Amino acid sequence: MTQQTGRFITLEGSEGAGKSTNLAFIAEQLRQAGKEVITTREPGGTEIGEKIRELLLDPENKAMHQDTELLLMFAARAQHIQEKIKPALAQGTWVISDRFTDASFAYQGAARAMGFERVAEIERWVQQGFQPNLTFVFDLPIDIGMQRVASRGGQIDRFEQERKDFFESVRQAYLRRAEMAPQRYQVIDASQSLQQVQQQISEQLVQRLHIALNV
Amino acid sequence: MTQQTGRFITLEGSEGAGKSTNLAFIAEQLRQAGKEVITTREPGGTEIGEKIRELLLDPENKAMHQDTELLLMFAARAQHIQEKIKPALAQGTWVISDRFTDASFAYQGAARAMGFERVAEIERWVQQGFQPNLTFVFDLPIDIGMQRVASRGGQIDRFEQERKDFFESVRQAYLRRAEMAPQRYQVIDASQSLQQVQQQISEQLVQRLHIALNV
Repeated sequence: MTQQTGRFITLEGSEGAGKSTNLAFIAEQLRQAGKEVITTREPGGTEIGEKIRELLLDPENKAMHQDTELLLMFAARAQHIQEKIKPALAQGTWVISDRFTDASFAYQGAARAMGFERVAEIERWVQQGFQPNLTFVFDLPIDIGMQRVASRGGQIDRFEQERKDFFESVRQAYLRRAEMAPQRYQVIDASQSLQQVQQQISEQLVQRLHIALNV
Repeated sequence: MTQQTGRFITLEGSEGAGKSTNLAFIAEQLRQAGKEVITTREPGGTEIGEKIRELLLDPENKAMHQDTELLLMFAARAQHIQEKIKPALAQGTWVISDRFTDASFAYQGAARAMGFERVAEIERWVQQGFQPNLTFVFDLPIDIGMQRVASRGGQIDRFEQERKDFFESVRQAYLRRAEMAPQRYQVIDASQSLQQVQQQISEQLVQRLHIALNV
């Protein structure tokens, strides 16, 4: 009997849409269903990737060109896929990542106006067809997301410094991507109560990935 | 009258082949001929690029995947081209760089066996046809180069740790690239005396770039 490979689930969405909270919830659900699970994040997820993340988020690196930014994102992603995600999946472990390639389409492709096709060229080069099995898009009006981020306090990174129309482009790009491939994406209305959001997540895990949950 | 753009000269070759010494020599020759000149290097050349260089050369980053390595090289290069090289050329300044894209073909394409075509895909994405006007390839038998590097002392970086067959692949790749496009490349036999090497460099600057040298 061949070992079953794990599944790869990614969480996307604007700032403040509740990715972190729901990532922990999904991991817990899957573990209760008997799955081995690791959680990870982008940019980062590996030792080398986290060093690249520091470069990307450092507000000092204001002069960073958008091509440089996209290549750094994919450099971290290549390392993440090869060192962590693929080996885990091959062992039957499920992988949940806070952001993945859809974020590059939304942030660099749409909000930085590089275009989806220019991002897709690098995606093909790095991933050679590798894709998540399921992507949750946590959708939230920009004003609410920005209020949530502001209320967290702490230092603002290079991306969080962007203006409202930047985040509006990010939001619309996620929705457009989800519309283009509904078999892979599930949009979640993140303005609902946490209980409603998590009810919907559980339903999707059962329907799409045939997880047996004792809910 | 439109302003004349500068020319872009790159120096390539195995370790210990005398790139640094001859870079200073070329800059001096061009300045004597009345040109504005800046010298730079890869990976690096900009503040962001130098931070990427640290990641690339750090012997701690042993787990770095070859795709990650190539994307980091080109991330630094994209920044270098956009922030430093193109603006300088546009102002009429000549730019001399210690290494450029040919190094990615030699190191990642050949020595890491990724293949020239895989490197060329990222080259096209980043450079969109932008190329040096002249590339000097300093060619030297591997044993001599390695002896020169060893005699310098100091810490050995992640690339210098590689074995002899790695550097043999690098050398052969440079020669193959030069053969494919003789109009852009000049191979220099770096086992000659420094005087002979610099005589040859001066001749090429005159012949290929029509520099008026008072030699």
